[in-house]
Amino acid sequence: MKPGISWMAVDVEAGHLRIWALSADGAVLDRVSAVSGVADVRAETVEALILEHAGTWIDGPIRVLVSGLLSPSGDAAPVPLPCAPPDGSHARPLAMKDPRLRAYALPPVVQSRPADVLQGTYVQVAGFLKAQSQFDGVLCLPGAYSRWVQVSAAEIVSVRSFMTGALFDLLSDDLGLGAYLEEALTDPDRASFEAGVQDGLARSHLLTSDILELRATALLARQTSEAARARLFGLLVGVELAGARPYWLGQNLAVIATAPLTQLYQSALHMQAVTASCVDGEEMMLAGLRAACATLDPDDQVSNGR
Amino acid sequence: MKPGISWMAVDVEAGHLRIWALSADGAVLDRVSAVSGVADVRAETVEALILEHAGTWIDGPIRVLVSGLLSPSGDAAPVPLPCAPPDGSHARPLAMKDPRLRAYALPPVVQSRPADVLQGTYVQVAGFLKAQSQFDGVLCLPGAYSRWVQVSAAEIVSVRSFMTGALFDLLSDDLGLGAYLEEALTDPDRASFEAGVQDGLARSHLLTSDILELRATALLARQTSEAARARLFGLLVGVELAGARPYWLGQNLAVIATAPLTQLYQSALHMQAVTASCVDGEEMMLAGLRAACATLDPDDQVSNGR
Repeated sequence: MKPGISWMAVDVEAGHLRIWALSADGAVLDRVSAVSGVADVRAETVEALILEHAGTWIDGPIRVLVSGLLSPSGDAAPVPLPCAPPDGSHARPLAMKDPRLRAYALPPVVQSRPADVLQGTYVQVAGFLKAQSQFDGVLCLPGAYSRWVQVSAAEIVSVRSFMTGALFDLLSDDLGLGAYLEEALTDPDRASFEAGVQDGLARSHLLTSDILELRATALLARQTSEAARARLFGLLVGVELAGARPYWLGQNLAVIATAPLTQLYQSALHMQAVTASCVDGEEMMLAGLRAACATLDPDDQVSNGR
Repeated sequence: MKPGISWMAVDVEAGHLRIWALSADGAVLDRVSAVSGVADVRAETVEALILEHAGTWIDGPIRVLVSGLLSPSGDAAPVPLPCAPPDGSHARPLAMKDPRLRAYALPPVVQSRPADVLQGTYVQVAGFLKAQSQFDGVLCLPGAYSRWVQVSAAEIVSVRSFMTGALFDLLSDDLGLGAYLEEALTDPDRASFEAGVQDGLARSHLLTSDILELRATALLARQTSEAARARLFGLLVGVELAGARPYWLGQNLAVIATAPLTQLYQSALHMQAVTASCVDGEEMMLAGLRAACATLDPDDQVSNGR
């Protein structure tokens, strides 16, 4: 067993896997992340992912908290909006074949209209509310699926999701721009990004044409692929801002993500004369996971080996 | 040699390969189509595709007319808009290793602003103009890349392209709807398609959110995948109509494609109180290819075996 490890947290949302080894007081002892390659990890495959990526951390019974599972009909029943972000008391035991793993799954949160499913994202909202319990406003959580979450009186009131990061990855691959979001945005071409935001916001109805214009521009060798990538991401963020307008216009706003995503969204909002604070997404995730772990029902026994 | 075969035509646009065997008077003797799997087929790979898919047709020297190649810096120099659709006099010899193949490539047509490249699509426009030389208006050519082509005085004046079919394929795959355009639309759910068109047109800025709503609706098992596919295609067509509005509002309009695409676009336009005639895309393609073959420069010798 990894020295000092008390429990593990696993998040599997949107094709990405993250596993943390945590001490009894919630300090991060180790961390691993990987592309799971599957947009919706099923309960049955979580165990294999844990053992593959973090098997060496384990040599005895250990509690594992899993977020981001979809399983709408699985063990952890979906929680309808409006609701406080589900915590450990909403988690349900997750059957594992390995008897050392005492796993619990946090449930998805669902909205009826427009239909929406929050898998692991609300854990970051829970973490944010730990520090700012009086927050009233909107949290923007960019990523593969960008979420705009209206929060009031410590509850999630409504959500609107946009396929921004995941669509960027699909298009970047299809257009031969050859870089996924994380890499593409490490040192983005700011001017191309901002021009993309302007166009995406002002003329959202031309999105599918502007994408082909990018392709033509690349074919005619009129633009570097760095500029094309940054413009593509800008276009998608601009369309997102156009669609999310009720969520940021005149709202108290915080952007929760990992740099540089946070800064790019902050600057795109700044172009609309909107001020948003930036909050680190991984810290919020961990704060939410710690709170969920602390509220797990100790009587809720795990049945292993089933 | 296939009996009666006089020449062959090959089109490679947008990931699809079509090869026709034609008689001296232009009758189709045989036809093969396949997914080439490559969005932009390069000159070097055309020969392998021809021999793989139509090699049995050939046993002596034969003229081959190739359209849809990109090669912006290749043998056939791009023709800038406005222009009449390039014909055989603009084709250039295409080097082949197999000495039997006397191949010619038609050039791409390019537009500066917005940057756009027409590979093979203009051949259908040429075919259409053979029958309706006085046409003044807009031709809508749906497909992987939907093209709206403004035609006046037998010239292509301007074009606007939308990534409708290709984006449908990418998203259908990513969302697990599991069907490509051709199959998905053989017997589409008309009501879901039309609701998608309405929403895509009225609120284009919510496209990337509406796509995720489809995903959530599927996850919550509230919609069949047939309905989700038809709605997805409707959303994309609706956004296309929103962006292409100057091309159809008050215009003399014909839709050129293969059924059922033609009918779906016609009905989407009909919902906007716009009447468009339907024209068969393959017939227009063949008419254009025949005209191009008839205008090939007989003195333009092919150098083979290079």
